[in-house]
Order: sequence, then structure tokens, then C-alpha cells
Amino acid sequence: MEIKVVGIGPGGADFLTPQAKRAIEESQVVVGYTLYVELVADLTEGKKILSTPMKGEVQRCEMALEEALKGQKVAFVCSGDAGVYGMAGIMNQVAKNHPEVKIETISGITAACSGAALLGAPLIHDFAIISLSDLLTPLDLIMKRVKLAGEGDFVICLYNPKSKKRTEYLDMTVDILSKYRPLTTPCGYVKHIGREGEISVVCTMQDLKNNSDIDMFTTVFIGNSTTELINGKLVTPRGYKNV
Amino acid sequence: MEIKVVGIGPGGADFLTPQAKRAIEESQVVVGYTLYVELVADLTEGKKILSTPMKGEVQRCEMALEEALKGQKVAFVCSGDAGVYGMAGIMNQVAKNHPEVKIETISGITAACSGAALLGAPLIHDFAIISLSDLLTPLDLIMKRVKLAGEGDFVICLYNPKSKKRTEYLDMTVDILSKYRPLTTPCGYVKHIGREGEISVVCTMQDLKNNSDIDMFTTVFIGNSTTELINGKLVTPRGYKNV
Repeated sequence: MEIKVVGIGPGGADFLTPQAKRAIEESQVVVGYTLYVELVADLTEGKKILSTPMKGEVQRCEMALEEALKGQKVAFVCSGDAGVYGMAGIMNQVAKNHPEVKIETISGITAACSGAALLGAPLIHDFAIISLSDLLTPLDLIMKRVKLAGEGDFVICLYNPKSKKRTEYLDMTVDILSKYRPLTTPCGYVKHIGREGEISVVCTMQDLKNNSDIDMFTTVFIGNSTTELINGKLVTPRGYKNV
Repeated sequence: MEIKVVGIGPGGADFLTPQAKRAIEESQVVVGYTLYVELVADLTEGKKILSTPMKGEVQRCEMALEEALKGQKVAFVCSGDAGVYGMAGIMNQVAKNHPEVKIETISGITAACSGAALLGAPLIHDFAIISLSDLLTPLDLIMKRVKLAGEGDFVICLYNPKSKKRTEYLDMTVDILSKYRPLTTPCGYVKHIGREGEISVVCTMQDLKNNSDIDMFTTVFIGNSTTELINGKLVTPRGYKNV
């Protein structure tokens, strides 16, 4: 009995690792959020497909578990990396009382990595990844992390910077960070990586404020004290002294 | 004139994305550290290969630039992700005075992601990646970041935890973190991901001290206050309340 929780990367087939592709091909049942299942549609022909819309995370895990307990080989697909704000954690939690089900995480390219590549090389040195969604985390803990990451001069990558209802947390983040790095700090954001409408923008930390271009599909990058623009690319040097 | 800085993932072909594979196949010259060039040997037949041993980073970038300026399509290969402690940053730095050379980063699976997958799902929520190498970063800044990541209850992923000469920084890290999280905190480490001799070990924070198993090829994961062991897997819950 096995469930492979498979990260398919940011978009189309271009980012799908051979390991992830094989996990989907070898499965009998494919579970996932509707959009992600559609992204791998060419690999799932003839297979049983179980999908649910957004926010059905626990339900999807229960469906995957049920199929695995019936003896089906299950591929549970997620965008990006299954292990970074992905479904690998919750799948292990839901299957806690079923140690007979082998749960394997198959990593994929997470938005921090694919987004950084579009912008240049902002994550070359120590960095922190923080989600600004307070759906599952108290806002004060999120902002405490922002503050500490600022104090430590970490490059910061923000997931879920905004949602339709929650639009002010990114501005709060910039306000907190402005105590530790100037508003001219080089930053960037990316949207729809590897999909139609892909956008990557290099800007300053000031430009992140009141920015209506940034939404729930955006990943935001905030440089540290060493991050610079080189020929339009956002680059954090690693510190090679002889360059 | 173009240079693609290509992350090939942790090991063999299993982690190489189609995008990365194509970048190597379409290149005329392949540059990289000897071991990484060997990992993609089946893609480079008939191409000009330029490799140097460890610590020749700047030299490799200069070789890549020289070839690009001659009009050659260059693939500069790195293990993991080219943008996470990879060569994408330094390549942009070295080519700073040549805006006519287009430098593109091709992301790959970094050890934080591939290692986390082997251990279960430790990086499901906010995390910090810190390198313990002081070759290019002052030790006090490294340890300040460790402290702040501890204070912020970030899950922590450590790159370069030790080298032959530098063996005590991981113990220092544990000592600092023990002020913020108990020595019983679930942790793990991985070695040689996707290669011969692959190892993944789940342990406690205490077990990371005086640990002769951990070396420069190891990636270390330190759980936060919510990380738990579920059927032998290291899992950080995202906070779904109804599980």
C-alpha cells in the first residue's frame, strides 16, 4: 500500500522530474486539486482521477488514503514541491493510524527556486521562506518571523503574499523590514511561473507597497543588504572576494 | 551570446528536469566542476567540456564567459539548484561588464527539497536555509542567523554543516538553538541524495552533537516546536486544525 505525494513543479511538463513523471505513470489512482491534475493530464489517461477544488486538502488526503487501503497505487499531485507548503505533511498526518501505508514524498521545483531563476539569482545565500497566509498561522507569529528574518539580514521569499480578503500583510512586512534594510533594497516578484501569462518583475522594496499587481499567485523576493542589480538581474553575491 | 547556468538536481538523471536536460543538449560547450559534468556525461557527447576541480568557481565562470563571447552556447552545470548556493550568482558577477551576454538560470531540485523528501515532510511550513561554511561569510553573522531562526521557531535546513577542518560549528548551532527548542526536537540528516550510498537518518537535536557521521556532503534538518515523528517520518504540520 503506497501513496506518492508528487511535486510537479511550477507549471507544465518542462519542470517535471523523471522521478515525478514515473510516479504518476506507475500509479493507478491520481488525486489532487483540479488544476494540478489537469497540468499532468497527458500522463493520467485511463487512470482513476479524484480531484476536489481548493480548501479540500483534508478530504483529498482521505480519498488518497482510502484508495491506498484498497491496494491501489496512489499518486497525489501538488504544484511546486510536495514538501514546501505542499501536501506531504498533511498526508502523513491523515494516515497517522495506518503505518502499513507507505507514504513517499517526491520533490519538485518549488516557487522559491523557479521564481528566483526567472529573476536572476536572489537566493544564492542564506534565506528564509515565509508564508503570509494567516489561515493556519497566527498573524503575530508571521510578523515575528518577518522581523527576525529582517534582523538577520536573510534574503526573504514570501509565499501567499496576498489573497482577495487579505491585502495588507505585504505592506506590514515592508514596514517591518524597513527598519533593517532601506526601501531601495532590490526586490522582485513572479507570477504564473512556467504557465501562460508568466510575469517577472524586478523592483525596489518600496514598490512592493500598495502594489495591485501582486496577488495570491505571486511569489515575492526581498533582497538583503548585499543583493544588487546586475544587468537587470536580481543577484545576491555569495561573497567571493576576488570578483 | 548566452550562458545557461543549469541546476541538475542532487544526483543522477532522475532529478534532471526536461528544461535542464534541453539546456545541456542544446549547448555547444559544457562547463562545470568535474564531478557534476560527469553526472550528465550521457548528454554531453561531442561537446567541448571545460571543468576544474573544487574552489575554481571564478575560473569556471571566466571560462564560461570566454566561450560565450566567442559565440558558443554555454551550459554551466551545478548540482542541486543553480540559484541556491549555486553558480548563478557568481556567473552574473563575473559577466557584469558584458551585458551582451544573456545569462539564464535554470533551476533544479536543491538539497533542502530532495533531502526533506527523503526524511518525510520537515519543510512544510516557514523555514530558513543557512550555510555553516565561514569560507565566504563571517562566523558571527552565521551564528546570529542561527539564533534568530531559533527565536522565530523556523524549521532550519543547514548546508555545509562541516568540513574536514571545520567540525565544531554544528555543535555551536545546537547549543544556540537549545535555548529556543528542546534537545529532544526531531531532526534529521541526509547524505549523497540520489547517488550511491544515499543515507537518511531521523534523530533528535541532541544526536546532531559530536556526530561523526555528518560531513561536508550532509544536509541537516532541525525541526521547530511543532515538528513531529509520524511513523518514522519527520513531519512539520502546516496547521490544519481539523486533523
